[in-house]
Amino acid sequence: MAMISPSRRLRRTPFSDGVEAAGVKGYTVYNHMLLPTVFESIEEDYRHLKEKVQVWDVACERQVELRGPDAGRLMQMLTPRDLRGMLPGQCYYVPIVDETGGMLNDPVAVKLAEDRWWISIADSDLLLWVKGIVYGFRLDVLVDEPDVSPLAVQGPHAEDLMAAVFGDGVRAVRFFRFGVFQFQGRDMVVARSGYSKQGGFEIYVEGGDIGMPLWNALMESGKPWDVRAGCPNLIERIEGGLLSYGNDMTRDNTPHECGLGRFCNTQTAIGCVGRDALLRVAKEGPVRQICALEMSGARVPGCTHLWPVMAGDRHVGNVSSAAWSPDHGTNVAIGMVRMTHWEAGTQLVVRCPGGDRGAVVREGFWA
Amino acid sequence: MAMISPSRRLRRTPFSDGVEAAGVKGYTVYNHMLLPTVFESIEEDYRHLKEKVQVWDVACERQVELRGPDAGRLMQMLTPRDLRGMLPGQCYYVPIVDETGGMLNDPVAVKLAEDRWWISIADSDLLLWVKGIVYGFRLDVLVDEPDVSPLAVQGPHAEDLMAAVFGDGVRAVRFFRFGVFQFQGRDMVVARSGYSKQGGFEIYVEGGDIGMPLWNALMESGKPWDVRAGCPNLIERIEGGLLSYGNDMTRDNTPHECGLGRFCNTQTAIGCVGRDALLRVAKEGPVRQICALEMSGARVPGCTHLWPVMAGDRHVGNVSSAAWSPDHGTNVAIGMVRMTHWEAGTQLVVRCPGGDRGAVVREGFWA
Repeated sequence: MAMISPSRRLRRTPFSDGVEAAGVKGYTVYNHMLLPTVFESIEEDYRHLKEKVQVWDVACERQVELRGPDAGRLMQMLTPRDLRGMLPGQCYYVPIVDETGGMLNDPVAVKLAEDRWWISIADSDLLLWVKGIVYGFRLDVLVDEPDVSPLAVQGPHAEDLMAAVFGDGVRAVRFFRFGVFQFQGRDMVVARSGYSKQGGFEIYVEGGDIGMPLWNALMESGKPWDVRAGCPNLIERIEGGLLSYGNDMTRDNTPHECGLGRFCNTQTAIGCVGRDALLRVAKEGPVRQICALEMSGARVPGCTHLWPVMAGDRHVGNVSSAAWSPDHGTNVAIGMVRMTHWEAGTQLVVRCPGGDRGAVVREGFWA
Repeated sequence: MAMISPSRRLRRTPFSDGVEAAGVKGYTVYNHMLLPTVFESIEEDYRHLKEKVQVWDVACERQVELRGPDAGRLMQMLTPRDLRGMLPGQCYYVPIVDETGGMLNDPVAVKLAEDRWWISIADSDLLLWVKGIVYGFRLDVLVDEPDVSPLAVQGPHAEDLMAAVFGDGVRAVRFFRFGVFQFQGRDMVVARSGYSKQGGFEIYVEGGDIGMPLWNALMESGKPWDVRAGCPNLIERIEGGLLSYGNDMTRDNTPHECGLGRFCNTQTAIGCVGRDALLRVAKEGPVRQICALEMSGARVPGCTHLWPVMAGDRHVGNVSSAAWSPDHGTNVAIGMVRMTHWEAGTQLVVRCPGGDRGAVVREGFWA
């Protein structure tokens, strides 16, 4: 693969200096920002993530901030998830859809107050959609991208490391809740969340200037647990069934196809964009859906385009992410498969570079 | 610099196989798609572009297609440029702004028919803004990203090469006009345009399947002129004053600050978003503006963040793009400078990595 060419357009983050000092070997670009993809190797990073603790530069999870009297109304317009019971201090994973029910993003909404929200976004310029809606409906709300850069602490020792830096209070933060904690006199939103199944936290770092001091403090305090710089890990996220917007789903897909139906309350999410389009699919279910697939044979190559999933001559789905899992001794994959062939145990064939592979649909993901 | 990690999310293009066979060495990501940045070296590519002819994979210039009775009204809502005199067959460079007059994109609008347009976009998900506006105003227009991938042919021999593949009719296409020409029985929109000052064309390739046949035909027919795979060139575009959205301008900037006031007719562009915000700046002019700057000393490093431009202790601007120009024997740069210091000949200092550099404001760009 080729090198990535630096430019201002591929924004550096408040933690980039730390990431580079730690010897980052690969990057991707996410929300016009650099996102590390590998330090030692994908498999070394995976092993370390599952056993120790890592600090991740996920500043590319940019925030769309909503402020003002119409913020709550706007937030409900954006998602088919019913937000009426949501309290300040909670985080919700919210599918965001367009008027046809097609996925535009799958962010985490952070309710700071009744009239103030952050939407911690996946890789699309959701800000532009939100601004367009606000303009069209003349809503009384400010929409902007604040100087907030998430830093994740993930792995079995994440809580110990966080407690060492922020105090034991962080241990009481429940899953998908947040509290406000201080670092060097600065308030920071700290949520128990993150893009791994190993447990951990995300720190919403306000103000780029405090980024490297926090990074360095975590690295210093984490020595007893062999802390390292890390990043979302391809193998671990596939094992855990953590979807990636742009990889496993696009605007072509409904939340129901993505297995996100449980985050939709289309009947009661009054006023949400795409409600009309989703009511029927919410009732009857989708005709294709995200599945875990186990692919036979040696290590698969990287999945850079959809790999057709075949049942004989019938094209019944596609694989969108795949990797070799050392822990499971097989190739783990995420694909979307038609209803006729999505039963667990169904034997299929995946047309992947280098030749066809046998594959079997699993009941669920690995973790 | 690190490697770029492949994934489906960083979309390959219909020409990626050709690009890789030609030995691409660097990529950037643009509209969630791979864009080559270097083949031999930035300076070798520059020399060849200025003397020969190159074929560029600019599929990342994605199209936002508008179709339907409200397409024209919508297009005028999107830009402060007055489109009333624009005819089918014309291309207009159009600043797109939000309600505050901040730049959201600087695309080329292609008027295919009164009720059908393509917007050939720079690096932001303009589709989401357009869809938000359409939804909010309930406009009668379909908005989508079609399977259209621009391929550019640039350089002094571009016309000869294009004539060899599409026939002599392409020679009659005027600047920023397009005609429809056939390749292997398929209609293609061919415009005289492109992101260089060396002359050339952009082919709007409809249907990914015809991508590599066209690429190969251009490479084969171009042998007499020493055709090569190329890409937008950093040095050449700075010399020519071709701005890059995300590098030289962002949502923080008005079109007037970007020197794009001549593409705005704010008074007469009735109904355009941002008109209220831009009327005053259109009349009085901006307080800072894009300038060409010549920077002294040896070859500058790559510009990955804004470099402050100083007049003594006063911060009077920023450099956003810079490169060593072999032809001019100096460092060429694009920056934004405050009115108090933008006169040609003004001596300034640029705080760039490795130490301060003297800089002088130029009357205009180099080409």
